[in-house]
Amino acid sequence: MKDPILWMHCTSPELGELAKKNAVVLIPVGAVEQHGPHMAVGCDSFVAEWLAKRTARSLEEQGIPAVVAPTLTVANSLHHMNFPGSLSLRPSTYMLVLQEWCRCIAAHGFRRIVIANGHGGNRAPTNAALVEINLELGFPVYFADLTVALKPTVGLESEKSILHSGEGETSLILAYDETLVDPVYRETNGQKVPAPAAERAGLAATFHRMETKTTNGVSGNCSLATREKGEVLADAAVKRRVVALADEALWAQPV
Amino acid sequence: MKDPILWMHCTSPELGELAKKNAVVLIPVGAVEQHGPHMAVGCDSFVAEWLAKRTARSLEEQGIPAVVAPTLTVANSLHHMNFPGSLSLRPSTYMLVLQEWCRCIAAHGFRRIVIANGHGGNRAPTNAALVEINLELGFPVYFADLTVALKPTVGLESEKSILHSGEGETSLILAYDETLVDPVYRETNGQKVPAPAAERAGLAATFHRMETKTTNGVSGNCSLATREKGEVLADAAVKRRVVALADEALWAQPV
Amino acid sequence: MKDPILWMHCTSPELGELAKKNAVVLIPVGAVEQHGPHMAVGCDSFVAEWLAKRTARSLEEQGIPAVVAPTLTVANSLHHMNFPGSLSLRPSTYMLVLQEWCRCIAAHGFRRIVIANGHGGNRAPTNAALVEINLELGFPVYFADLTVALKPTVGLESEKSILHSGEGETSLILAYDETLVDPVYRETNGQKVPAPAAERAGLAATFHRMETKTTNGVSGNCSLATREKGEVLADAAVKRRVVALADEALWAQPV
Amino acid sequence: MKDPILWMHCTSPELGELAKKNAVVLIPVGAVEQHGPHMAVGCDSFVAEWLAKRTARSLEEQGIPAVVAPTLTVANSLHHMNFPGSLSLRPSTYMLVLQEWCRCIAAHGFRRIVIANGHGGNRAPTNAALVEINLELGFPVYFADLTVALKPTVGLESEKSILHSGEGETSLILAYDETLVDPVYRETNGQKVPAPAAERAGLAATFHRMETKTTNGVSGNCSLATREKGEVLADAAVKRRVVALADEALWAQPV
Amino acid sequence: MKDPILWMHCTSPELGELAKKNAVVLIPVGAVEQHGPHMAVGCDSFVAEWLAKRTARSLEEQGIPAVVAPTLTVANSLHHMNFPGSLSLRPSTYMLVLQEWCRCIAAHGFRRIVIANGHGGNRAPTNAALVEINLELGFPVYFADLTVALKPTVGLESEKSILHSGEGETSLILAYDETLVDPVYRETNGQKVPAPAAERAGLAATFHRMETKTTNGVSGNCSLATREKGEVLADAAVKRRVVALADEALWAQPV
Amino acid sequence: MKDPILWMHCTSPELGELAKKNAVVLIPVGAVEQHGPHMAVGCDSFVAEWLAKRTARSLEEQGIPAVVAPTLTVANSLHHMNFPGSLSLRPSTYMLVLQEWCRCIAAHGFRRIVIANGHGGNRAPTNAALVEINLELGFPVYFADLTVALKPTVGLESEKSILHSGEGETSLILAYDETLVDPVYRETNGQKVPAPAAERAGLAATFHRMETKTTNGVSGNCSLATREKGEVLADAAVKRRVVALADEALWAQPV
Repeated sequence: MKDPILWMHCTSPELGELAKKNAVVLIPVGAVEQHGPHMAVGCDSFVAEWLAKRTARSLEEQGIPAVVAPTLTVANSLHHMNFPGSLSLRPSTYMLVLQEWCRCIAAHGFRRIVIANGHGGNRAPTNAALVEINLELGFPVYFADLTVALKPTVGLESEKSILHSGEGETSLILAYDETLVDPVYRETNGQKVPAPAAERAGLAATFHRMETKTTNGVSGNCSLATREKGEVLADAAVKRRVVALADEALWAQPV
Repeated sequence: MKDPILWMHCTSPELGELAKKNAVVLIPVGAVEQHGPHMAVGCDSFVAEWLAKRTARSLEEQGIPAVVAPTLTVANSLHHMNFPGSLSLRPSTYMLVLQEWCRCIAAHGFRRIVIANGHGGNRAPTNAALVEINLELGFPVYFADLTVALKPTVGLESEKSILHSGEGETSLILAYDETLVDPVYRETNGQKVPAPAAERAGLAATFHRMETKTTNGVSGNCSLATREKGEVLADAAVKRRVVALADEALWAQPV
Repeated sequence: MKDPILWMHCTSPELGELAKKNAVVLIPVGAVEQHGPHMAVGCDSFVAEWLAKRTARSLEEQGIPAVVAPTLTVANSLHHMNFPGSLSLRPSTYMLVLQEWCRCIAAHGFRRIVIANGHGGNRAPTNAALVEINLELGFPVYFADLTVALKPTVGLESEKSILHSGEGETSLILAYDETLVDPVYRETNGQKVPAPAAERAGLAATFHRMETKTTNGVSGNCSLATREKGEVLADAAVKRRVVALADEALWAQPV
Repeated sequence: MKDPILWMHCTSPELGELAKKNAVVLIPVGAVEQHGPHMAVGCDSFVAEWLAKRTARSLEEQGIPAVVAPTLTVANSLHHMNFPGSLSLRPSTYMLVLQEWCRCIAAHGFRRIVIANGHGGNRAPTNAALVEINLELGFPVYFADLTVALKPTVGLESEKSILHSGEGETSLILAYDETLVDPVYRETNGQKVPAPAAERAGLAATFHRMETKTTNGVSGNCSLATREKGEVLADAAVKRRVVALADEALWAQPV
Repeated sequence: MKDPILWMHCTSPELGELAKKNAVVLIPVGAVEQHGPHMAVGCDSFVAEWLAKRTARSLEEQGIPAVVAPTLTVANSLHHMNFPGSLSLRPSTYMLVLQEWCRCIAAHGFRRIVIANGHGGNRAPTNAALVEINLELGFPVYFADLTVALKPTVGLESEKSILHSGEGETSLILAYDETLVDPVYRETNGQKVPAPAAERAGLAATFHRMETKTTNGVSGNCSLATREKGEVLADAAVKRRVVALADEALWAQPV
Repeated sequence: MKDPILWMHCTSPELGELAKKNAVVLIPVGAVEQHGPHMAVGCDSFVAEWLAKRTARSLEEQGIPAVVAPTLTVANSLHHMNFPGSLSLRPSTYMLVLQEWCRCIAAHGFRRIVIANGHGGNRAPTNAALVEINLELGFPVYFADLTVALKPTVGLESEKSILHSGEGETSLILAYDETLVDPVYRETNGQKVPAPAAERAGLAATFHRMETKTTNGVSGNCSLATREKGEVLADAAVKRRVVALADEALWAQPV
């Protein structure tokens, strides 16, 4: 069933119209990577797309034209590659891909592009890529990180910031589509390997393979997850994003 | 609703099981590009994924494990960039992306990978990419081109081979989801610019921007399209592909 | 002995004149790869250059200025690398090289460039490369594939399409220079390994190393080759190409 | 005067000894970019190197062998390029350079490498680079960000986190070498352009050219800077880093 | 007429035999670039190939197996691009190409590879490329520069070192094939633009476009050229090269 | 202590002034590589920077504005990698880095850029890089090679051209800072492995790993080195360079 909020569902003339209206284009960027024994490997992509759609619809309701570009599913998950099902680009390839997507969108006249990110591993390569993207395009492309939008983690018992496959993330997927969560989540929790103090304090950071940080691929307490918590989280994140993207001051800025 | 034929819907342990069973992995590769005034720009991606799913299910029914990888949506559509909504990688970037997807899939132990292509523009870059992909992986990745699977074009009145946004392609989308086709298709037909004889005979081929070959972005007679024709086409293509991929001789071949 | 049809033999001022006359530039692209126990490894390059020269001369006789660029000899032969003597670029390097040659030719003012291809392995990478070449140059560079020009394979007994080192190709080299064919060809024939049905039907295509398809590197029946057959083939191919390239409509086309 | 804490000052045999002792190698990574009307453009590089040397000496005093690699001076400053004197690599080139430096250091047997960063613009590209660096080397290279080490910003009146050319940074340079600070700093303060709320909240982040965020290239209140504040900051940062890097648990971790 | 000294003329089994005999492989590297108003643009390639063939034959006569690889014709001539007919790769592409040719030759078992260079512009990129080529292959590939082999310039009146299109080079082409030299050479001489003293002394060197150094593209006195001088030069160069390449000590060296 | 001849020590406004005055920018390019058992691995970088500073000061004294850019320390030393402490970029990465530094310097308006080279291994990659650098920038960047400036090797007993870690180089470092030379130099001399005649004559050149040419990493007679010899050498080199760079004819040249 056609959903006109989706770029992929629109016809070429419809997208031409959206460009003329200077619509906000949200590019959901997710991941395809292990999410513990209980969640679908695509769940970062599903959440990225789901919340991008809800954000776009909400913007439309406020009279701000918006559209959701195709979801960039396979992104930066090299740290999960030792768990089955994880797929990843190399960071440098990801950076090229993001640049070419943005270049095409800009070529059609769009000037309000948002990377609607749903996966922490994309943060550094996206920010590194935006340097050259913005300089090339001549206007700023914005990075809207889901972790930030979810930050207050309203209603969660065990997380102040979203953890991999934990209470928050599992709740979000339960809210999105509970069939994508195996019931085993009720008996599962993160088997976290404690990090040295220097890492905990952020004084020394690095890239680790995920299996060295959690033996079952889960970082938080997914057994605490509920559908209701997910709905609360999602509502709050969308609201925060809509306020952010509805601000004309954001779009008036030069690179 | 979880669909276990989809890689993205499976959990990591489920994909580990599929690798152990040596499942066939179909990677739908489509496009995001104009399809005339009447069709969704994502339709090549939708058809690629739809038929990959039907092929995988049919293989499963014959006892051959199969799974559908994420769809590579934005691929090779530079020739359509002057029509709104088209998105494309550069061919060299596409080749890198395809190589990295296949590398990851192989890293999990899968040895039966099929590029389930749904877009003509992907043909040359995919074949060029497979040279290095196969040499790197040590087993052959197969390219299953939809145009070939659809070749007999059973039931079509105006096409012997599938044309861009024409009778066949529009019929397929009507069969897939008719809400993705604007009713204007009934009054629309290809505004083809005749090609010189040398091009028609294949003696001189080249890359043209689509607007130089058809002013409205349509190459065939979409007004002849019907849902029924699309169903016949799709059934036949899936059947042909299933026979092809069920042949053990295919998988026994070295690079 | 100076042959003014050859770019390499002309002086700089002579090439300046040819550019002013808007001459057709044919770039022979061949291969350096095994051709069975009987043929010189350079034979694809020799035939590409030979037929390009005959085509150019014939165009000149019709009053159409033409010149033959240096031959790109080492191209796409990674599939033959397990046979001694084969040399190859990686496809991505080949694509860069082709782009840089065309860029230089265009920089001198030429606007009619033809890739006069003599080797099947160049097809996909050349077509992939032309996407960016044409967009960069702003005019279409044409790909003239020898296999197409030879297609009717007039006079051959065992081939409907030219096979590697078979009746047609061996006949062509006998016609070009019979000293480049070892007499062993009379007792040699292709030791073809049968392909699975899916490959034969084109439903699943891939890149194979040549030794998996023919143990002696020959695909057809070279023992049927004769010099006369080669002359007939060559004459027909040149005629077809000349008709194609003499058509002003070809050159009037935009990218 | 030879300073044996510096890699560049050591002889080859001395570095061979350090490798055998499994010394910690600190790579100072700075920047060459405008720092307002008052500070030397190299000051991020000077501070990075200065604090790396003090950290290394302090580690040595605790019996932990350490050495300071050459300083990577020109790094990621494209956002400052519209101010005279700024020099920068492209992020992708920076990532290659970092990888090759680490590869060489590891080739000599060192297994404890720390990127001692002194410039915020290096954060994303360094983190993006570490993905492939760690996977290639097989042990984790650590990123020690100065901003984090300085975080409590003890003794500063106007900054909770270090700002570009502000109170903290100017104090650090005064402490390092006050001749590198033009007295004009006493009458200078940041001419900050207020950011939209969404950016302030981190909900939408992007790369901006520095002149759009501060017209004189200064973000904080440099007029509050003093040499003493700089000494306090530097002492604290070195102490924190030494504690972090002296922790054996850090070095015991796999990638 | 088959010339078995040429790689391109040999069959695959013949090249397999040559590899077993550890034959010396000479790769002629030339140029396609303007050579004044009087010489064919391919002359650097012709001389490179001609002298490589003579060197190889002479080695064979001494019992040292040798073969001449295809000639790399289009190489490093960006400095000549403002004269019609010049063709060039970018240096970085040239370096890739050279690496891939050498990799293939080595893959067939050859361990004695010589770059038989005939063009000064190839010197720096070839030497830069050999760093990675030798490290990859594990044995040294040698660069035999024609300028050095011709250095004593025996018999020349106006040149102590070979100049572009001057007395020596024109004599060589007269000796190779006088039809490739336009008689205008007798009335032509270099229209050299004097270089600053610093350049003449080598204290400051750079890349200049050729038209800034000589307005007619000629650097020496071609009017003094004779066929006989060319023969003397060629004989001497071949002799010197043969002595060099016949020395077993050269081939015994590691990288 | 601020040294205004150094780019890194200047403020942004000071560099803006220097650009307006069209100052000469010297980029010292050195190396980080073994220099025998007696010298600091950074000595090529130290000498490159030291002599660049003296050259710049001398130019300033003649009324020619000049400034010394940051030193490119890690450059082309892959041939030394088997000796501890050597660091190197790949040649192709070095070429990118050099191009980006020059691009930035030119972006600020400087038009007189000099690569003040202090290491032989940088020669080929720098010259290869200058082809594209000059074409991109539109003005010539000059390569000032220290070996040439030192060529007469005034006052040396054992060297006519500077050898690696020999009499000349060790003398230079003694003159620069004798604490960077271990007294062991008095008992050390090059353990040179004799090269084949063809290499000595330059007829066959290649890239060798340094340990194959000298077992202790020293090529000359460092035991003959004295501080006084170094001062004489340095004075002469600086004088020669100043004369070269003070010549307006050099800067008037186009690419």
